[in-house]
Amino acid sequence: MTTQATDDETRTIPYRPGLEGVPAGESAICQVDEGDLGLRYRGYAIGDLAEQGTFEDTAYLLLYGELPGKKEAADFAERLRAEWPLPPSAEAFLDLIPPAAHPMDVLRTGISLLGMVDREVEDGSRQANLRKAIRLLAQTPELIAAVYRRTRALPRLHPRADLSLAENLLYLLTGRQGDAQAKAMARVLDISLILYAEHEFNASTFAARVTASTLTDLHASVTSAIGTLKGPLHGGANEAVAAMLLDVGSPARAERWVRTALAEKRRVMGFGHRVLKKGDPRSLIIQREAERLGRLCENQRWYDTAVIIDRIMQKEKHLYPNLDFYTAVAYLLMDIPRELYTPVFVCSRLSGWCAHVIEQQDHNRLIRPRALYTGPAPRTYVPLDRRG
Amino acid sequence: MTTQATDDETRTIPYRPGLEGVPAGESAICQVDEGDLGLRYRGYAIGDLAEQGTFEDTAYLLLYGELPGKKEAADFAERLRAEWPLPPSAEAFLDLIPPAAHPMDVLRTGISLLGMVDREVEDGSRQANLRKAIRLLAQTPELIAAVYRRTRALPRLHPRADLSLAENLLYLLTGRQGDAQAKAMARVLDISLILYAEHEFNASTFAARVTASTLTDLHASVTSAIGTLKGPLHGGANEAVAAMLLDVGSPARAERWVRTALAEKRRVMGFGHRVLKKGDPRSLIIQREAERLGRLCENQRWYDTAVIIDRIMQKEKHLYPNLDFYTAVAYLLMDIPRELYTPVFVCSRLSGWCAHVIEQQDHNRLIRPRALYTGPAPRTYVPLDRRG
Ligand SMILES: CC(C)(COP(=O)(O)OP(=O)(O)OC[C@H]1O[C@@H](n2cnc3c(N)ncnc32)[C@H](O)[C@@H]1OP(=O)(O)O)[C@@H](O)C(=O)NCCC(=O)NCCS
Ligand SMILES: CC(C)(COP(=O)(O)OP(=O)(O)OC[C@H]1O[C@@H](n2cnc3c(N)ncnc32)[C@H](O)[C@@H]1OP(=O)(O)O)[C@@H](O)C(=O)NCCC(=O)NCCS
Repeated sequence: MTTQATDDETRTIPYRPGLEGVPAGESAICQVDEGDLGLRYRGYAIGDLAEQGTFEDTAYLLLYGELPGKKEAADFAERLRAEWPLPPSAEAFLDLIPPAAHPMDVLRTGISLLGMVDREVEDGSRQANLRKAIRLLAQTPELIAAVYRRTRALPRLHPRADLSLAENLLYLLTGRQGDAQAKAMARVLDISLILYAEHEFNASTFAARVTASTLTDLHASVTSAIGTLKGPLHGGANEAVAAMLLDVGSPARAERWVRTALAEKRRVMGFGHRVLKKGDPRSLIIQREAERLGRLCENQRWYDTAVIIDRIMQKEKHLYPNLDFYTAVAYLLMDIPRELYTPVFVCSRLSGWCAHVIEQQDHNRLIRPRALYTGPAPRTYVPLDRRG
Repeated sequence: MTTQATDDETRTIPYRPGLEGVPAGESAICQVDEGDLGLRYRGYAIGDLAEQGTFEDTAYLLLYGELPGKKEAADFAERLRAEWPLPPSAEAFLDLIPPAAHPMDVLRTGISLLGMVDREVEDGSRQANLRKAIRLLAQTPELIAAVYRRTRALPRLHPRADLSLAENLLYLLTGRQGDAQAKAMARVLDISLILYAEHEFNASTFAARVTASTLTDLHASVTSAIGTLKGPLHGGANEAVAAMLLDVGSPARAERWVRTALAEKRRVMGFGHRVLKKGDPRSLIIQREAERLGRLCENQRWYDTAVIIDRIMQKEKHLYPNLDFYTAVAYLLMDIPRELYTPVFVCSRLSGWCAHVIEQQDHNRLIRPRALYTGPAPRTYVPLDRRG
């Protein structure tokens, strides 16, 4: 199946806009859509990982290829804790951020800066890249929370050694921890991190691999991924869904709202997927959790509103909710600040991105496709002094 | 030729490692390899642009699709001048940079930060993107020079209104301007910027387009491109060529050096190209300029060394020099600090990147390919408490 392209063959490779369905590399990380809405990370079903695992377990699996044993899991948690503190230049960077800056622009800049000062930035070995991945997993929640709390003049919080990554994230962003409701919320957040961790050659992961394929450093690749995830067609959708739910306001107004949007040919955020045309298995999982959390919080408004939009989108457009749709309901219930939904996605997808960068560089070939030329025919140059 | 992929068709799309020869989008910007070593920007032959044009002319052509008239050219130059000054947070960022930081990491972070504070960051319209492109073209030389001079404790220089972009770049990086030698060097630098400006779907441009395809902002896309360009298989090669020439040291040692490198199966930087297997038309142009500059500077050492390496690579490996090879000779003669060769490449390629981002978003479709799964077969999840 793999062959060296000759010029003649190239002309026969069909053109698919957006590279839809085009194989762009080999990967052992994630199996998408193997029938029956399946999704597996390194061979393990997403449902099992979400129901029985933790985000730390999943991140380890993605990075190392195998689930950790008890000792590896404890070591991994310990190493994540040891890497929390931000280096001094990242702390100094916090002073430069205007309060109105977009959190994804701040995060992209902050991660790029962490690369600029990383003690191992020029060591591109597999082992160094694994260490950098762990540092990024540890530092990112701290960075997001530090920026958020500072620009709102809220007191700085630091991660706690007795909390898991999801518990810490909830604590840093909302101050919640300790009571039963906080525990339940952290568990739903943990599940959402597991679901967000990896999804094959999605746009941000693919951007990370294109970047990695010139043999640049891991932070550069992750920086590309963050800038890519920001877009509303990708990670920016979760935040847009929450904005929509707030705009709709209540279940009673949902049907009218969505019918108007469709009549005006607007895209309804949180629906559709390039690959998963028949539905997203992750959506079913997070929908159940969002419903459960709504009951627990005695606030069914967002869930009930969402369900109506979902029903109409399926009926009228045959479009299914993607992972971002019900995740937004869950995050609304947790009081995670809306502008941090996509940064929270980053905290999780980092694990998938880093696994892909390492895999790309393990068997590297430069990713350099061709364009179909549609521009002007050859024309004669006219020097400036003879132009009008 | 363009069709919606069905599942069955997808399975028949051939897999080309590195997307070699695979059409990944339509573009009216650059025509590569149309036989006889041709290369055209928007229909104009690269040789004419390099011999008779300026970098400003080329950047305008790439961004707006047509060569500027006299008035447009004057306005464009004026707008570039007006956008030089760095915003206060970029000035403050200069204080955070450790002297040993890699200039490409600094530049990636700095450009990302310029996006974070750009007054139009959330305006993704074509007109706003053109304005952002002009700002980036104006600010980048200033940023590179400011960082370099500060970390070396050299006095800060600012661009001068009476100099062209290439003249300013030479002045900011080396202090040279005014005399006949500086004029000759600036002209060669101008030519090299014209040659570096654009090259279809090369890895950094493709990364910028993947990023842009989620409808994220222009600075995010350019940040991806910079991180991608850093790699030694791409823009990092020009610097590596200079390191090689310095290591070889003299023409007398060249043959032995390159034969040893080949015997040890090392890649010789500055040779080979994914698309241009029969030679790079840009290399012929910059080779001639490098030779001329060597004579003018009465220093033929680097050029003569390069020619020997070139001859042996062609004879033994049938690999031709790419644009980076003789460019390194020219930059060595200009005394441009070696670690700034790839940042100088950025000053130029920015024009191509921005043209591609704007074109991508004019006719957007999310770029989201597939992977060929090579991982483990489905396996049964074992919860942590039952693992070893
Ligand atoms: C995810 C997404 C980019 C996949 O898109 P794609 O495979 O490139 O599909 P296209 O953009 O070509 O859309 C195909 C058709 O479905 C329609 N469509 C797709 N998603 C839609 C949505 N969310 N709402 C309304 N219509 C939608 C398009 O308008 C298009 O219709 P047309 O052929 O009449 O123009 C797209 O579904 C989308 O924009 N969804 C909303 C954003 C989102 O939720 N992103 C998160 C993804 S996990
Ligand atoms: C540019 C480049 C990445 C294109 O690569 P590509 O199309 O992916 O080609 P591959 O890496 O698959 O190489 C094909 C073969 O040529 C060899 N080759 C390619 N460039 C070589 C070089 N510069 N020196 C020695 N051998 C080289 C490879 O080792 C490989 O040989 P093999 O099949 O025996 O393993 C590659 O030529 C290269 O690494 N060049 C040096 C870096 C450089 O100058 N980059 C700037 C590009 S503008």
